[in-house]
Amino acid sequence: MRVLILGGDGYLGWPTAMHLTAAGHEVWVADNYLRRSIATEEDVEPLVPVPNLAERIRLWREASGHDMACRIGDLRDWAFTDRLFAECRPEAVVHYAEQPSAPYSMLGRPQAMRTLHNNLEVTANVIFAVREHCPTAHVVKLGTMGEYGTPNIDIEEGYLDITHKGRSDTFLFPRQAGSLYHTTKIMDTDLLWFYVRTWGLRVTDLMQGPVYGLFTDETGEREDLLPFFCYDELMGTVLNRFIVQAAVGHPLTVYGKGGQTRGFLNIKDTLKCVRLALENPARQGELRIFNQFTETFSVNDLAGMVRAAGASMGLEVRIDHLENPRKEAEEHYYNPVATGLTELGLDPEPLTGEVITRMLGFVLRHRDRVATHRIFRNVRWA
Amino acid sequence: MRVLILGGDGYLGWPTAMHLTAAGHEVWVADNYLRRSIATEEDVEPLVPVPNLAERIRLWREASGHDMACRIGDLRDWAFTDRLFAECRPEAVVHYAEQPSAPYSMLGRPQAMRTLHNNLEVTANVIFAVREHCPTAHVVKLGTMGEYGTPNIDIEEGYLDITHKGRSDTFLFPRQAGSLYHTTKIMDTDLLWFYVRTWGLRVTDLMQGPVYGLFTDETGEREDLLPFFCYDELMGTVLNRFIVQAAVGHPLTVYGKGGQTRGFLNIKDTLKCVRLALENPARQGELRIFNQFTETFSVNDLAGMVRAAGASMGLEVRIDHLENPRKEAEEHYYNPVATGLTELGLDPEPLTGEVITRMLGFVLRHRDRVATHRIFRNVRWA
Repeated sequence: MRVLILGGDGYLGWPTAMHLTAAGHEVWVADNYLRRSIATEEDVEPLVPVPNLAERIRLWREASGHDMACRIGDLRDWAFTDRLFAECRPEAVVHYAEQPSAPYSMLGRPQAMRTLHNNLEVTANVIFAVREHCPTAHVVKLGTMGEYGTPNIDIEEGYLDITHKGRSDTFLFPRQAGSLYHTTKIMDTDLLWFYVRTWGLRVTDLMQGPVYGLFTDETGEREDLLPFFCYDELMGTVLNRFIVQAAVGHPLTVYGKGGQTRGFLNIKDTLKCVRLALENPARQGELRIFNQFTETFSVNDLAGMVRAAGASMGLEVRIDHLENPRKEAEEHYYNPVATGLTELGLDPEPLTGEVITRMLGFVLRHRDRVATHRIFRNVRWA
Repeated sequence: MRVLILGGDGYLGWPTAMHLTAAGHEVWVADNYLRRSIATEEDVEPLVPVPNLAERIRLWREASGHDMACRIGDLRDWAFTDRLFAECRPEAVVHYAEQPSAPYSMLGRPQAMRTLHNNLEVTANVIFAVREHCPTAHVVKLGTMGEYGTPNIDIEEGYLDITHKGRSDTFLFPRQAGSLYHTTKIMDTDLLWFYVRTWGLRVTDLMQGPVYGLFTDETGEREDLLPFFCYDELMGTVLNRFIVQAAVGHPLTVYGKGGQTRGFLNIKDTLKCVRLALENPARQGELRIFNQFTETFSVNDLAGMVRAAGASMGLEVRIDHLENPRKEAEEHYYNPVATGLTELGLDPEPLTGEVITRMLGFVLRHRDRVATHRIFRNVRWA
């Protein structure tokens, strides 16, 4: 099918684009390089330099024979979005085009407003463009498990049946996020939920946990095809950061007690999940929600696994419990359900010592590139 | 106390400003005349012309001896907002500064984006300005009962205790709105809820039902002090519209079956509720939510009351059941709680035949001003 990937240059967008072409789909990618602009402005460049999107497409075509169409522009700009959808007429849209960093959104007012503007205007423009140009297209939107926060009840998959004073109804599962970035994802859900009910759009919202990893079936070990691999506090996800910290002998930066528990997944599983959602679309008029993670770990669990993997490679890995710069529960109940994608056939990649040592090996070969001042910047929530 | 009223020119903002000065508070008002711009652009001028805000303040000073400070500017503009809060240093903020029309928000993409931009950017700027200049100020925000939609369970006051699989937690009451405008109010709640938890702001969110009326203790029958009184489909609330329709012999425009039920209140009660909230503030770090209405009626109930009041004045009032241009349930369960404001001492004005005949008498004196093409425009949700 013809798939338009918005944010096709990102950590997940680019590997998804390669993966879908390899699976035989016609792929269009669009991006405004927001992530690269932020990386440059905030001095959080990835470990390994990343070619621009046109160059990446050329390299992938040479490597695989698969091609894709590319448009560079800002999806906040209606003229660009309107033209893009008119030209592409996608059968499915994968919407990754969001400012993806929680700490970035907490840096200050300009960064908060940039996150709010980008994420909501792009989602609104996508809704209007789909309505205008391709009302039966299936929109696969990346949400986040962070929309749910850490409630004291089991987290169901998107919805919750509630009985109250003898009467019952089904609602969106209550949402209460821990950063402005995560709050914009809740606001995206509000928008999608309203327009799905009003205009009968067809949407899958993937409530994804933190992703780790850098190799996919398409990248292999080819460095010029890898996604952004960040180890800084703004753009790096926790396991990726811990692995780089271990490689350079920096103590692992556990925030507070380290009991914060989340649902994690390998980047390869992100690609499988998005493809499963695309190939098994939501019904017209449905906001289908999947919780997208494969295993839950606490931050302490991850630190322990990285220490063990490091030890197996002769590295002595220390763990620091820093004063928590965020406002979050450090010990809490966490029991989220994730059955929808499994029922569609997801065969997950578990987090093993081998997965960590392979990544650690890669980082060790590039350890001279690590700028240690990027590792901990202490972006404070309060 | 020193109260800053944002949106101080609006249907509720202006009467609130007069009311609070009469109660002895120091009042600042700010407005960008968005409502007036929309009224001019969309040809939905009020029944009686309204002097500009500077002129209204002069008239009120002459009538009452009470003065207020006034700043004209756009709260989306951070430079204006920053300066306003720095200068005023309010002890309390009443935030009415939102695009207030559901049908306007459904007219098309530009109107939807204008609603989204205005309502969210202003709320975000207010949050940042309070944090910067007056972190202990009490923010009284106008939400809407429409955030809850029409669920099949009783609507509690902002929050709901949920027990699920043997565990319990308290959440924001589930929200599911029926227009983009109402959805932006949900998104406002998301923003306030996040920053109250993270920064300890002090907020009261008033979930208000549709307001009717035009006279307050401060206006009396003085026409030059009245709020905007609109009878069109965009800016007029349902009872106000029905009264004008009755006055000019237009059939009352009931949408569909007319079983749509909501919680209503007299504009005088809006002023009392806002004042009660201000004089009994939320605690620091609290998002206090009150459901703000005094009586529930179906649209058919209101039409029947207007017909009866009309008959008592010798008017024959017809009722039309039009094909519903909106997407909404026309028969549904509706049982909302509203005890918080009553506990603070609210003594409500019930909707009586006398309230309707007084308004009807006023409109009859101005019936030559009614432009009947404004009455029904058929703004369609789908």
